[in-house]
Amino acid sequence: MVVPLPTSVSPAVAVGHVFSVEGHDQLQLSPEDRQRITERTKWVLDSPDPPGFRQEILGSIRNTVFSRKNKNSNSAQPPLACVMAFLRSVFPILNWAREYKASMFKNDLLSGLTLASLCIPQSIGYAALAQLKPQYGLYTSVVPPLIYSTMGTSRELAIGPVAVVSLLISAMCSKVVNPMADLVSYNKLVFTVTFITGAFQALFGLFRLGFLIDFLSQAAIVGFMAGAAIVIGLQQLKGLLGISHFTTKTDVVSVLIAVVKSFQDTWYPQNFILGCSFLIFILITRFIGKRNRRLFWLPAIAPLVSVILSTLIVYLTKGDEHGIKIIKHFKGGLNPSSINQLQFNSPHLRESVKIGLVCAIIALTEAVAVGRSFATIKGYNMDGNKEMIAMGVMNIAGSMSSCYVATGSFSRTAVNFSAGCQTAVSNIVMAITVLVSLQLLTGLLYYTPVAILASIILSALPGLINYTEAYNIWKVDKLDFLACAGAFFGVLFASVEMGLMVAVAVSFAKIILNALRPRVEELGRLPGTDIFCEVDQYPVAQAVPGILIIRLNSGLLCFTNANPLRDRILKWVTEEKEATKRPISGIILDMSSVTNIDYAGILALEETNKKLLSGAIKLAIASPRWQVIHKLKVAKFVDKVGRDCIFLTVSEAVDSFVGSKFKGPGNC
Amino acid sequence: MVVPLPTSVSPAVAVGHVFSVEGHDQLQLSPEDRQRITERTKWVLDSPDPPGFRQEILGSIRNTVFSRKNKNSNSAQPPLACVMAFLRSVFPILNWAREYKASMFKNDLLSGLTLASLCIPQSIGYAALAQLKPQYGLYTSVVPPLIYSTMGTSRELAIGPVAVVSLLISAMCSKVVNPMADLVSYNKLVFTVTFITGAFQALFGLFRLGFLIDFLSQAAIVGFMAGAAIVIGLQQLKGLLGISHFTTKTDVVSVLIAVVKSFQDTWYPQNFILGCSFLIFILITRFIGKRNRRLFWLPAIAPLVSVILSTLIVYLTKGDEHGIKIIKHFKGGLNPSSINQLQFNSPHLRESVKIGLVCAIIALTEAVAVGRSFATIKGYNMDGNKEMIAMGVMNIAGSMSSCYVATGSFSRTAVNFSAGCQTAVSNIVMAITVLVSLQLLTGLLYYTPVAILASIILSALPGLINYTEAYNIWKVDKLDFLACAGAFFGVLFASVEMGLMVAVAVSFAKIILNALRPRVEELGRLPGTDIFCEVDQYPVAQAVPGILIIRLNSGLLCFTNANPLRDRILKWVTEEKEATKRPISGIILDMSSVTNIDYAGILALEETNKKLLSGAIKLAIASPRWQVIHKLKVAKFVDKVGRDCIFLTVSEAVDSFVGSKFKGPGNC
Repeated sequence: MVVPLPTSVSPAVAVGHVFSVEGHDQLQLSPEDRQRITERTKWVLDSPDPPGFRQEILGSIRNTVFSRKNKNSNSAQPPLACVMAFLRSVFPILNWAREYKASMFKNDLLSGLTLASLCIPQSIGYAALAQLKPQYGLYTSVVPPLIYSTMGTSRELAIGPVAVVSLLISAMCSKVVNPMADLVSYNKLVFTVTFITGAFQALFGLFRLGFLIDFLSQAAIVGFMAGAAIVIGLQQLKGLLGISHFTTKTDVVSVLIAVVKSFQDTWYPQNFILGCSFLIFILITRFIGKRNRRLFWLPAIAPLVSVILSTLIVYLTKGDEHGIKIIKHFKGGLNPSSINQLQFNSPHLRESVKIGLVCAIIALTEAVAVGRSFATIKGYNMDGNKEMIAMGVMNIAGSMSSCYVATGSFSRTAVNFSAGCQTAVSNIVMAITVLVSLQLLTGLLYYTPVAILASIILSALPGLINYTEAYNIWKVDKLDFLACAGAFFGVLFASVEMGLMVAVAVSFAKIILNALRPRVEELGRLPGTDIFCEVDQYPVAQAVPGILIIRLNSGLLCFTNANPLRDRILKWVTEEKEATKRPISGIILDMSSVTNIDYAGILALEETNKKLLSGAIKLAIASPRWQVIHKLKVAKFVDKVGRDCIFLTVSEAVDSFVGSKFKGPGNC
Repeated sequence: MVVPLPTSVSPAVAVGHVFSVEGHDQLQLSPEDRQRITERTKWVLDSPDPPGFRQEILGSIRNTVFSRKNKNSNSAQPPLACVMAFLRSVFPILNWAREYKASMFKNDLLSGLTLASLCIPQSIGYAALAQLKPQYGLYTSVVPPLIYSTMGTSRELAIGPVAVVSLLISAMCSKVVNPMADLVSYNKLVFTVTFITGAFQALFGLFRLGFLIDFLSQAAIVGFMAGAAIVIGLQQLKGLLGISHFTTKTDVVSVLIAVVKSFQDTWYPQNFILGCSFLIFILITRFIGKRNRRLFWLPAIAPLVSVILSTLIVYLTKGDEHGIKIIKHFKGGLNPSSINQLQFNSPHLRESVKIGLVCAIIALTEAVAVGRSFATIKGYNMDGNKEMIAMGVMNIAGSMSSCYVATGSFSRTAVNFSAGCQTAVSNIVMAITVLVSLQLLTGLLYYTPVAILASIILSALPGLINYTEAYNIWKVDKLDFLACAGAFFGVLFASVEMGLMVAVAVSFAKIILNALRPRVEELGRLPGTDIFCEVDQYPVAQAVPGILIIRLNSGLLCFTNANPLRDRILKWVTEEKEATKRPISGIILDMSSVTNIDYAGILALEETNKKLLSGAIKLAIASPRWQVIHKLKVAKFVDKVGRDCIFLTVSEAVDSFVGSKFKGPGNC
């Protein structure tokens, strides 16, 4: 309940006393100074009104939904040029294809082939991680990259299945339909989720809702990725140990229990030995590749070499008869259509939408972060909204051609970049190579051991765990680190969704906490200047005797912190009086940090003013911001505190306070 | 995923180009100026570290939980004095009772009696609103005021049942137990809720969690109170129309349907005529009281006069036999014990805790707001934490002596103040008067018509609806008004809890929205000064040619707004270049509004710096705050941007940029 305060104590009465400031007798203000201060106060008070609520909302929508550039370019052009401009804006390939040179193709061909050699084994592995048949991984490396290469704006991004999204699909979809029990329904669910993921991504792009992916803070992503990497690694124990029965849960505890249990069955150490040997081989090639930049192709082709060698070994030694688990049947051929498998009236639609939204955000986050960092290296601009539309369309098309969710892969994009790719043509080369392999080589993969796929996935995981980043986060912001740790442990010990939810919750709680904490700081004059700074931050700053200069250290003076701030200021005045045994004649509130104020904030200021007046202390407001001074004027606070007690800067408020001693009553 | 950006472009290379700023050839910096700027940059960079995360948390807990005063006073005193000081701090009556004078008692007696005459009819009416027997209202006006008068710090607050809390109890408890079906269980539930309310209030006070009641913004309270007043008014239609069967729901639609339905039964217009006549009588006395301040007692005793007159009328005309509903049985006597009725192992405990929490917050909000505003008028301090403890203890004691939730009443406190009360003795006088009435007069209330109680409650409602306040909120802050309207319509059309939830949700959404919106503003030099201000706010401000001065208009540079801010700045640079056809040599980021930054914010700054460097544009940071400069140092951003590109003020950054033309490479 808000009770109007009595207004019987008028400012004019309270300012009637004479401010006496010791040691400042020399500081008499000249009429010119006074004139200048009044002039500047006028600047503050007579500023135009800031844009109103409606204008801000409209402007924000206009900025978000409509691109200014498109509007201009579409206005004064003939229809055909208009269509061409539109097509060029939707398909950037129409722009760069005309300037494409043979010399570029040499680089793109090389990097595309390198990419394919890494992509084939990884795709098969990630499909296994997503609990799909291996060919679906390869399908996903054909259609989405082809579509992306026409619509995307990144030149390096290598499109295809990635580890984290595969884990998400596996963890979240297998809760809805058990793939062990009903693989057909599971496949249908995965394709539907892929369609919904694409639809969300395209909508984000169309309505310029790119800011939604910013809701996952970097800290949360670092923690989430690290947690997911460990979970994926643990999942690979199934393949590496050749275990047949495994848990569908993803948390550490369940997986470790499943591993321990499986040791009680018969297990074949050959799987483990084979997997580990090739894992070590891949890691050594990576070490060499890092040491010698010219051998970048060595770690890139190592996985394919491992697959070929291990398949040969198993084939020659008939290892499959001695307990080594192999892929066995592998359906080749073109991507079959999966339009009939999309199910929008199934009872699982609600879950599908939820999974699709999570996948859309995680996939976009990964792709945009990877794409943007390489675009920054090469110094070109990646259009976030176009990227989202491209990703959306490629996933929608993918869902109709037996692909699951594809996005930009971190490890393969780095390989693509190292191999010197010039344009998205490398993606086309890769897709065609994978397509050819699907036609010709799948029969040869019959004897490929499952343990090799596990070791290929394992070898890609360290890139997802970013110790340095986590350490930097810890150094910079402890609460950010809490979000990071929350995501990490949430993924590890609860579930993938739980980890994400914890991270988002911690991140937003941080913002609210920041708005809650009332902070005020005392300002002092930096010696020899008219600059007033926080005395804690700048120990050289000197307080002005008899005047308390307080800066509100909060971007928003609102209901959560207004009353505590008022109490803090009033308490401070009392303590300061007791401590210095000297009367305080005035308080200057530096509002320069307060970008906005609400009704509660204005009430708190009014109460502060009333209380101070009753103690014969004058309140002055210095450097109010646009929105703040506007609201103070509208709420008539300016009239209550007195128009001559609003100042452009703290320095002028101090001059006015110190000088007013000589001026006498009626002026502050 | 966060990919480390390449660090090959070192700042030293990029700053090597010569900044050329037109029209500033005369502005050569003297060596002294340069020296001065360097000196001040050192102040910024060599500031001590701000308190770390642990210190802040500990300091915040210390400030919240422990009162500094208590610690000091308890340290160096003999045990007995210690105990006395403690008792005095818990029971403020021990302080003021020693200075109590007979002259004060005259005032307190008068105001106490006036208060009682208003309190008796209101208490009976509010008990009916809470769906309790009328005597419980009177019980609640005995024990809580007596306890409050010993422990409270407010001198004017009139304690007892109030309309809004009665509505809350009725609306929320009747959903758990239907009082029509099982009044005994309902009473038990109400007493348990009262105990829990008291426990919450005492805990809030003990742990200094007063900030929790700030979570309801003033705007939300204005809307909530207005909505509750209308709902209470509608509930009174039952008594006013003499309806027997009525809905237990509180929303407008259900109540109106119930009223229309009841017209189809037989109803007796006598009730309505009687109630309205006395309602008009009370309103006329109030009008007279407002016109003539010396007749303040007239509106205060009008309700009691109405009760007496109407009871007499019914008794004499035997109105109860002609359809006028009367109170009938009314149990008098002392407050009976209700300890046995407290139920902490009932299945409703969870609901009880929820209702108790809501009641605790609403009751405290009302009492603290009312108490504080009258304390401000009289110029003394009300201790919020002691108030909460006093309220808590009085409600716990009340729950054991057949009282329901009591708090400070808005209308009665105003009467108490007008009657010239001096201390809480007026509450004691009131409580004793009510106690005596309970012993002697309850038999006389047999014939009191129910319609009169309805009109007494109705007459108290207009004070809860604050049009002016709502209009002020609308003028000042449209989003605040949304919270206000949300609470109002939520209470009116859904339920009391829904209204509160909507208000809290809108209020917090506002904070998050504020943190989300990326806002940057261009600064310009105010003519003839070294002050740089927003060009929109101060149209006199002039941009510095060749330099873009941007202020981040957000208290928190964090994950929600960091990337959009980065994009906005980079886009602005491009647009500015295209618009002015003049190269931009440098960008000065005024960080004075940014009180804190997180890891995402630092990354965004780093990326901005990289992008600007690749366009040969220099980035300078001006007036960073304590936490911000600390984090920039820790994250090595200061080293990346260059230590000589951090400035104390915008003015120095501009001087340095403009002067650097003559200085040549290697300096910004």
